[in-house]
Amino acid sequence: MQSHEFFTPIKRELQIMEEELIKAVDTNQPLLKQASGHLIHAGGKRLRPAFVLLTGSCFTSKIDHLIPMAVAMELVHMATLVHDDVIDNSMSRRGRDTVKARFGNRMSIYSGDYMLAKALHKVGEYCRADLMKIVTETSVKVCQGEIVQLQSAFDVDQGITDYLRRIERKTALLISVACQVGALLAGASPPMVRAMRRFGHYLGMSFQITDDILDFTADESVLGKPTGSDIRQGIITLPALYALRYSPEASGLRAILSSPDNVARQANRAISIINRSGGIEYSQKVAEKYINKAQLMLEQIPSSQARTALSRIADFVCTRDY
Amino acid sequence: MQSHEFFTPIKRELQIMEEELIKAVDTNQPLLKQASGHLIHAGGKRLRPAFVLLTGSCFTSKIDHLIPMAVAMELVHMATLVHDDVIDNSMSRRGRDTVKARFGNRMSIYSGDYMLAKALHKVGEYCRADLMKIVTETSVKVCQGEIVQLQSAFDVDQGITDYLRRIERKTALLISVACQVGALLAGASPPMVRAMRRFGHYLGMSFQITDDILDFTADESVLGKPTGSDIRQGIITLPALYALRYSPEASGLRAILSSPDNVARQANRAISIINRSGGIEYSQKVAEKYINKAQLMLEQIPSSQARTALSRIADFVCTRDY
Repeated sequence: MQSHEFFTPIKRELQIMEEELIKAVDTNQPLLKQASGHLIHAGGKRLRPAFVLLTGSCFTSKIDHLIPMAVAMELVHMATLVHDDVIDNSMSRRGRDTVKARFGNRMSIYSGDYMLAKALHKVGEYCRADLMKIVTETSVKVCQGEIVQLQSAFDVDQGITDYLRRIERKTALLISVACQVGALLAGASPPMVRAMRRFGHYLGMSFQITDDILDFTADESVLGKPTGSDIRQGIITLPALYALRYSPEASGLRAILSSPDNVARQANRAISIINRSGGIEYSQKVAEKYINKAQLMLEQIPSSQARTALSRIADFVCTRDY
Repeated sequence: MQSHEFFTPIKRELQIMEEELIKAVDTNQPLLKQASGHLIHAGGKRLRPAFVLLTGSCFTSKIDHLIPMAVAMELVHMATLVHDDVIDNSMSRRGRDTVKARFGNRMSIYSGDYMLAKALHKVGEYCRADLMKIVTETSVKVCQGEIVQLQSAFDVDQGITDYLRRIERKTALLISVACQVGALLAGASPPMVRAMRRFGHYLGMSFQITDDILDFTADESVLGKPTGSDIRQGIITLPALYALRYSPEASGLRAILSSPDNVARQANRAISIINRSGGIEYSQKVAEKYINKAQLMLEQIPSSQARTALSRIADFVCTRDY
């Protein structure tokens, strides 16, 4: 995403946020600093902080006090990423592990834990029980979502509702909360806070569905990972669910997706079946429906430069091709 | 530890705590319930909840409102345990991983995250910024401690101060905080809260040093893990540090402990050198010194049945032989 153009109204604050983010993981433990610094410097779109700040800007011109919360949201997000990257059985070399390999997973875990704790520490500094409750409940639910995703791997009998509930936890929830707390901290009225929370939810749903589509359609060079990497991990997303239900080749697809061994051997065949099933087009329609709902939520709040930016981000989310 | 005899003054509250603990990890995700339930039903001494409740009982007779905090402390502790168990390169079978193995580490991570988030959620329910700050700062420091432990593995040049700082983070801190928040929630005065925090610190230090001694001296059947398991992982504890400095065989020990390969081959030789170096006796003296300091702290608070129980636990900690 060429994020900078959408983020003009909060350019200065995002810059301070970035500095604070770096400070938040600046410890005197070189290894930890290296691990979390690596993740921070790898960039990322800073979408969640931007949502906190842009949402806040819809209701007040003074948003400096939102910056710690913006940092916290990115830290929660990064903690999730780091923990998602922990792997089970790699990095062994000739049947024996190197010291580096030995500490690989553990470092990932501890740096994730560290970032989560730092995030909650930052939220705690507001001394507001409502904010703390929102963020800790979110962490609990995000964890549950990750576990549901593990459980549903290779499960070809899951329904579309299962999928939607899963991506709600995995992605939409944190974006929704970013918008909610942005509005809360900016002093928005309860109906406005609710509208922004729902805006974030709808946008987050659309964002993840689009991500799941791109996993099938985008180039490896653009994705930074092999096309169909979800399928290869047994993660069954909306295009696949559609194909499992409506493709004339559904039974063949079913046989592939229900078995890790078959997926390993026939991932490309599965991807082809899904691509020609109409599942991509169906998923695009669902993503658009969510964005339309997100836009309706925005109409409930006062017009502003920040609202326009949010609206443009929403439109971009479901039309981006990478 | 035959914990029940020390815990008589808080028997009823510990029972409720146990039920609340089970409820805290009772989700509708079978896999998560299974993973965290396994850990809970595996028992454990519930030392941290007991410290919250006993410390509280030193200052008030009504301690029911301390139970959620006691649950939170145990959840933080269990989250640490679960994340400590994550391994890097095991469970591969004939070079390829089973689905169970594949999800093993990830489940550990997510259930740990879940327990940590639940813990902070519970603390958040008190709506007290001071408590939240204490607990999140503790989590941050515990993570840092785990990382320092990774970093110091196989490092034969670390000093005794490094070791003490490490076990402070790893063990003493959470016990110290358990006592501190117990006193805080019971309405103890600031000097009393401070005394209890320091009591917990000294007791925690002694507890970990004794654990580190037992790793060399106790039977495999008692420990539930092989004797010398720290050494085998490259974790250099107080008896080893003493031997590295004062044993006539120090240079041989140094050569073993500085290399994972040598440790793997010659762990038993290293254990023998340490056992005959006087490092065990030295460490026992250090552990006793800490317990004496802990007892002095207890003398600062009013006499009560709960204080007696705490004092007996302290004495037990550094004399137990398992």
